[in-house]
Amino acid sequence: VNHLAVVGFGQMGASLAGAWKSGRRILAIDADPAVRRKAAERGFEASDSLDRCALADAALLAVPTREAARILPDVARRLREGAVLLDVATTKAPLVEAYRGAPQVEWVSLHPLAGNERSGIDSADPAMFRGAPFLVVPVRAEEARIAEVEAMVRETGARAIRIGNPKVHDAAVAVTIHLPHVLAYALPHLARETSTDPELAGRSFRDSTRVALSDVRMVLEFLLTGAPRTVEAIDRLTAILGRVREMLARGDEEGLRRFMEEAKGERGRI
Amino acid sequence: VNHLAVVGFGQMGASLAGAWKSGRRILAIDADPAVRRKAAERGFEASDSLDRCALADAALLAVPTREAARILPDVARRLREGAVLLDVATTKAPLVEAYRGAPQVEWVSLHPLAGNERSGIDSADPAMFRGAPFLVVPVRAEEARIAEVEAMVRETGARAIRIGNPKVHDAAVAVTIHLPHVLAYALPHLARETSTDPELAGRSFRDSTRVALSDVRMVLEFLLTGAPRTVEAIDRLTAILGRVREMLARGDEEGLRRFMEEAKGERGRI
Repeated sequence: VNHLAVVGFGQMGASLAGAWKSGRRILAIDADPAVRRKAAERGFEASDSLDRCALADAALLAVPTREAARILPDVARRLREGAVLLDVATTKAPLVEAYRGAPQVEWVSLHPLAGNERSGIDSADPAMFRGAPFLVVPVRAEEARIAEVEAMVRETGARAIRIGNPKVHDAAVAVTIHLPHVLAYALPHLARETSTDPELAGRSFRDSTRVALSDVRMVLEFLLTGAPRTVEAIDRLTAILGRVREMLARGDEEGLRRFMEEAKGERGRI
Repeated sequence: VNHLAVVGFGQMGASLAGAWKSGRRILAIDADPAVRRKAAERGFEASDSLDRCALADAALLAVPTREAARILPDVARRLREGAVLLDVATTKAPLVEAYRGAPQVEWVSLHPLAGNERSGIDSADPAMFRGAPFLVVPVRAEEARIAEVEAMVRETGARAIRIGNPKVHDAAVAVTIHLPHVLAYALPHLARETSTDPELAGRSFRDSTRVALSDVRMVLEFLLTGAPRTVEAIDRLTAILGRVREMLARGDEEGLRRFMEEAKGERGRI
């Protein structure tokens, strides 16, 4: 990939553009003139037209998930023969649905597990991928193409982790991303309901609720698009909490210890 | 307080001893000869006998909660007139119960919201209190005494936060400490049940489960001693998760946004 079009130049698009800048021509496509101006100041070509995707070797959808699903056919239709479609959506199901009615271009879906509470080009950081897991979900692509994309992923300093398909991806992130976000919002509500002074928050509460400071629109986007899997994850977690509740209520020290040690072992594998 | 006896020289006892060392005589009381040797190497007097509490201006119980409740009457009985009892138990109810049958010495209960996953004197760090909330729960003490203890708390670099009484304390920490720990253990179990590769854990999952790496005995201690309040917190959280689940299931974007924004505002107060 020598010429990359990045559609949506927010925190993620601009960060990846920065990480992939060296040796590549990168075009920022964004509807917002202020973002385009900032992209130009940072040394990127900028345009407001999806038509410019026609010249690229790869087009990266870096807009919110529902918007990415909406424009996916428009971008796929414009890609030249041999170009590859990329995206960084947190939930893949809406894109898979949109892809069904689009030209069957090569598509390697991506999901960097990086980013912070801020949003927008001003919070972009090309170094944010270093050491982070970066999921590679091939949907329709030759092995050589997948390997090429994985090499690009490693260029950012991230660890490329290949996921079998979008369904596996969506079920996994419901557990590892969406549910922790739901809990991060639920805990402050619990604090408020119980009139608990937030000043009394220890490290565990702070850590568990940090992502509640994220951009609400961004999180709402992936919670809504991933809702069916997140509902399943909530139901399973509620069942596990019910087991803990029973062990606590009857003072089952041995059961609790085993439960905690199993969890500690599983957590230690990260 | 010029002469302090610290009963239990683990991470917390040794860290506080380090923070309070300057200008004070500090005695480490610990049953483990290896711990006493290490305490001596760090410049503290060391003993294995609670009798030595009789000489101190203050005795700090820094052993696990149930052990602290067990020895509280023995320590209270030994304190000289005018000396003050201190403790750093995570749950106060068992100590309050033990205090009922003990000599009514002055008692200011403490709870530093600091510490890390490790345990024992080797992981002690007198700097761990800097900027951390440090709860001060007066049980029976003159205002001048409470003020003196709060000044000691501030000496560690922590923010002294006074809590009305042990019941208010226990209800608050069930929400801000015990429940986040329960969730930190529940999430890895969910990952295992759903065969989710722990490598796919993003920052939110990592942050929310970090305390699952804690010393199991220590956490078990406060979960068991604080069980009634933690069960209540689990029930309330389950109800909140049920509300989120319904909003997700029916795609209630407005309801979710409001829920998230309220939580973000509450979290922002920390």
